[in-house]
Amino acid sequence: MISIKTGSRTQMIDITDQVRRVVEGSGIQNGLVHVCSLHTTGAVTINENADPAVPTDILNTINKIVPWDDQYRHIEGNSAAHIKVSLFGPSEMVALENGSLVLGTWQSIFSASLTVRGTGKSM
Amino acid sequence: MISIKTGSRTQMIDITDQVRRVVEGSGIQNGLVHVCSLHTTGAVTINENADPAVPTDILNTINKIVPWDDQYRHIEGNSAAHIKVSLFGPSEMVALENGSLVLGTWQSIFSASLTVRGTGKSM
Amino acid sequence: MISIKTGSRTQMIDITDQVRRVVEGSGIQNGLVHVCSLHTTGAVTINENADPAVPTDILNTINKIVPWDDQYRHIEGNSAAHIKVSLFGPSEMVALENGSLVLGTWQSIFSASLTVRGTGKSM
Repeated sequence: MISIKTGSRTQMIDITDQVRRVVEGSGIQNGLVHVCSLHTTGAVTINENADPAVPTDILNTINKIVPWDDQYRHIEGNSAAHIKVSLFGPSEMVALENGSLVLGTWQSIFSASLTVRGTGKSM
Repeated sequence: MISIKTGSRTQMIDITDQVRRVVEGSGIQNGLVHVCSLHTTGAVTINENADPAVPTDILNTINKIVPWDDQYRHIEGNSAAHIKVSLFGPSEMVALENGSLVLGTWQSIFSASLTVRGTGKSM
Repeated sequence: MISIKTGSRTQMIDITDQVRRVVEGSGIQNGLVHVCSLHTTGAVTINENADPAVPTDILNTINKIVPWDDQYRHIEGNSAAHIKVSLFGPSEMVALENGSLVLGTWQSIFSASLTVRGTGKSM
């Protein structure tokens, strides 16, 4: 099990290298790697990171689809993050062949921390 | 394989305890648990249930994102449910370590039955 | 590993039979099948295909939820496809029991190629 610390704001963090190191350290050669969030406001997704504008576009769009404020009943104020997690999903599976993660050329694994709106603004 | 009966309306049912019982009954100690829907209008998701307002907010929002009526071509009238299933996903994977499901403190496994609009209103 | 060629336009292709053939050819009887896209503009989903209007409704709706043009920063012009992949997810898991895929009566596995807008229109 890997533990990854994420910052306090909404962000997508490329964790591919961290996952790769854990897998290589395990000595396991073939199987399926389960990359999961244990938080209900954090998701895991796989997408392009060659251009960091891609994760930016993903976050900007999901923030439009699921507005921060929308007469939510949950009083903690983070319903938007919960909803986004159910849309992205809390985990991804990645195949492992001969000790290497089976990812396409442009695929990176992201941990999406979805709790806090805006940059450096706490709720 | 577990079979879970859901009611006739749109709802998210916390099935964590049911999954836990099946896993414990299996005697399997370590691995990955595959929790899946075999219906094209039912999804599986993981989110918070400590406050039942969270699943309510999730359903209310997904119902706004994917409207019940929208010039759909599928004549059965349940296209919205099908679309939501593809957004939530039909299954989730949960790690199993030493006989216990690896879930975060606030994570519950939900079966999302997405077919019928409103409470007690049949289509 | 299966390789599936998809056409040049936005489409959902039913790959259930192809997955079934690969699984049967493998001789494996029980386990979990990981069906994944190695492209950041292609997703995998499970839904109904008995009525082909269902995948059409899914694509039409996801195209409304994630507009093709929306002040995206990624200059390749395919941000919408990337975003949709994170919403659908890049892979699905399907159980395998006694050599058969465990799918509901109406469940088909789809490869969703999400890159190009419209029919036969190149970007």
